[in-house]
Amino acid sequence: MIPLRKNIQQMAGYVPGFQPPDEAAWIKLNTNENPYPPSPKVVAAILAELGGDGGNLRKYPDAASRAGRVAAGKLYGFDPSWVIMANGSDELLNNLIRAFAGEEEEIAFVHPSYTYYATLAEIQGARVRTFGLTEKWELADFPARYEGKLFFLVNPNAPLGFTYPLEFIENLAQRCAGMLVVDEAYADFADENALALVKKYENVVVTRTFSKSYCLAGMRLGLAVARPEVIAALDKIRDHYNLDRLAQAAATAALEDQAYFAECVRKIRETRAWFTGELRVLGYGVIPSRANFVFATPPDRNGKRVYDGLYQRKILVRHFSDPLLAEGLRISIGTREEMERTIEALREIG
Amino acid sequence: MIPLRKNIQQMAGYVPGFQPPDEAAWIKLNTNENPYPPSPKVVAAILAELGGDGGNLRKYPDAASRAGRVAAGKLYGFDPSWVIMANGSDELLNNLIRAFAGEEEEIAFVHPSYTYYATLAEIQGARVRTFGLTEKWELADFPARYEGKLFFLVNPNAPLGFTYPLEFIENLAQRCAGMLVVDEAYADFADENALALVKKYENVVVTRTFSKSYCLAGMRLGLAVARPEVIAALDKIRDHYNLDRLAQAAATAALEDQAYFAECVRKIRETRAWFTGELRVLGYGVIPSRANFVFATPPDRNGKRVYDGLYQRKILVRHFSDPLLAEGLRISIGTREEMERTIEALREIG
Repeated sequence: MIPLRKNIQQMAGYVPGFQPPDEAAWIKLNTNENPYPPSPKVVAAILAELGGDGGNLRKYPDAASRAGRVAAGKLYGFDPSWVIMANGSDELLNNLIRAFAGEEEEIAFVHPSYTYYATLAEIQGARVRTFGLTEKWELADFPARYEGKLFFLVNPNAPLGFTYPLEFIENLAQRCAGMLVVDEAYADFADENALALVKKYENVVVTRTFSKSYCLAGMRLGLAVARPEVIAALDKIRDHYNLDRLAQAAATAALEDQAYFAECVRKIRETRAWFTGELRVLGYGVIPSRANFVFATPPDRNGKRVYDGLYQRKILVRHFSDPLLAEGLRISIGTREEMERTIEALREIG
Repeated sequence: MIPLRKNIQQMAGYVPGFQPPDEAAWIKLNTNENPYPPSPKVVAAILAELGGDGGNLRKYPDAASRAGRVAAGKLYGFDPSWVIMANGSDELLNNLIRAFAGEEEEIAFVHPSYTYYATLAEIQGARVRTFGLTEKWELADFPARYEGKLFFLVNPNAPLGFTYPLEFIENLAQRCAGMLVVDEAYADFADENALALVKKYENVVVTRTFSKSYCLAGMRLGLAVARPEVIAALDKIRDHYNLDRLAQAAATAALEDQAYFAECVRKIRETRAWFTGELRVLGYGVIPSRANFVFATPPDRNGKRVYDGLYQRKILVRHFSDPLLAEGLRISIGTREEMERTIEALREIG
């Protein structure tokens, strides 16, 4: 008998989005990856760090990923002591739970949103509560004072793509006795974000990822902005060398090339607008999206049927079996050409 | 008031070995890095994954790091289901605690060895017990049956460099009610290892790092070998994309180039033997080392004095303030030339 903790024995584990082995044969719109390569300056920075013989790789990286903190701080208008870099924003979500919620303590999030919060709470042995959404995308039954240790709010919401108004998020910060984590994985595609609230409320943390807007899902990079006391706690908890040398070089170069970043985001937003319009012409219900995906429901409200039709045509999108989501599909925004081919396929599928 | 967990508030955090900003000006023998660059095949694999425009980096990596598991399994004679890849072996040590020890449960390790185990236990809210060493490098007062959840044994011992006999480790496995984690960060420089015990005892886990023998401290790579049930638990706990694409490419290429690896290890062992002999000529006490460092005590048993003398000469070694270790120094094995210059400096310092 291997003496595992009960919570670990009982939990199922998170299943990430399907990655087909013959990737090149697919139009892959199921994991919200960016269709464009990263900035050429990112590639140049990786090559510079690698050097001719990879000699730098024999040495430990900067434990604090200082250059990334400085670049992010400059970009967002914070002192570097308000920033931490991580091996994907998942590392930050994990370490936030470890910092604030012990065994049997409660964390909460919105359903539907990112179910990985529940997995992370299960690993910790913490309890999970979810709050549903009303028809107007407001939180159902959120108490005047929420006493849980952490509340995770994905904004823009995934998988639905809408945003909560900033005043609403500010109101949530006031109502949370614990921390409010605004998971802004998709905020770069939206019109506003909650960074100003980090300055105003000591219990607000904003997390970001490089996987979507910076075209670097393959490099596992994320960051958080929060008060220095929160950052210091996250620094205690992270592996002391959490980011390798090439990842650090990539992160800093990506943050510093804002021209490339802005052009990528502009193209995604433009394609999103076009694709949304075309879906509506086909009779789909589409939630106005501020992310790099759309949640769309076919006229017959049979998401699985359309998923299968796209799958047969080697177009991979995301269908969720959750009854709240099963009528629709989450479709990542690829290149204009990929989305044109997707519209053609949807027309065929009918 | 930021509502941190008490254990996080109270803990100090781990301080990794000092990395001087003007690295190139130093002979750096303080963090057990390998003095040689990684295999040219590692560099080639990173470049191949990067491609011309870094286009692969926009896509998520393989969540399971399958290629690395296959390469390690082949090398060590295990099915890939017995192997997990990680962002440094620190990630594995962390996740082993999360898998087996809840709040207030006990883990233990040898003092002196790697103090990071204590940090990881503090993060979890677990309790820490240490067992001292006798004059013969045996564990003092280890009970006939140890009921703690995990016992961490670094073999070869760091910072002292000696090895425990395999029969002793086997005996420990029998006496541990919980898991015995053999941290083999330095085992590639030794004559034997505990992999056979993983097959024989279900409570034995072996961890390895690429930071020392594979010259890849800068890439944050580690692996563990254990029963599939243990690997499955660690897979639930790790961030689902824990290794980036370039790190995965580097790990697989490093494991597959055993000729380069063997030559690196041979050079380190040869230099270690030469350096040990020279230290003894200078009157130093040197513990016979099976690692890529030696623990050496000057004739006057004043480790700090010699540390300072070396520091003034831009040679960085490791001095520990712990009274058990303060008389000596841990000196990493660099190139033959670096060690010759270190001997000259020690002769000057007297």
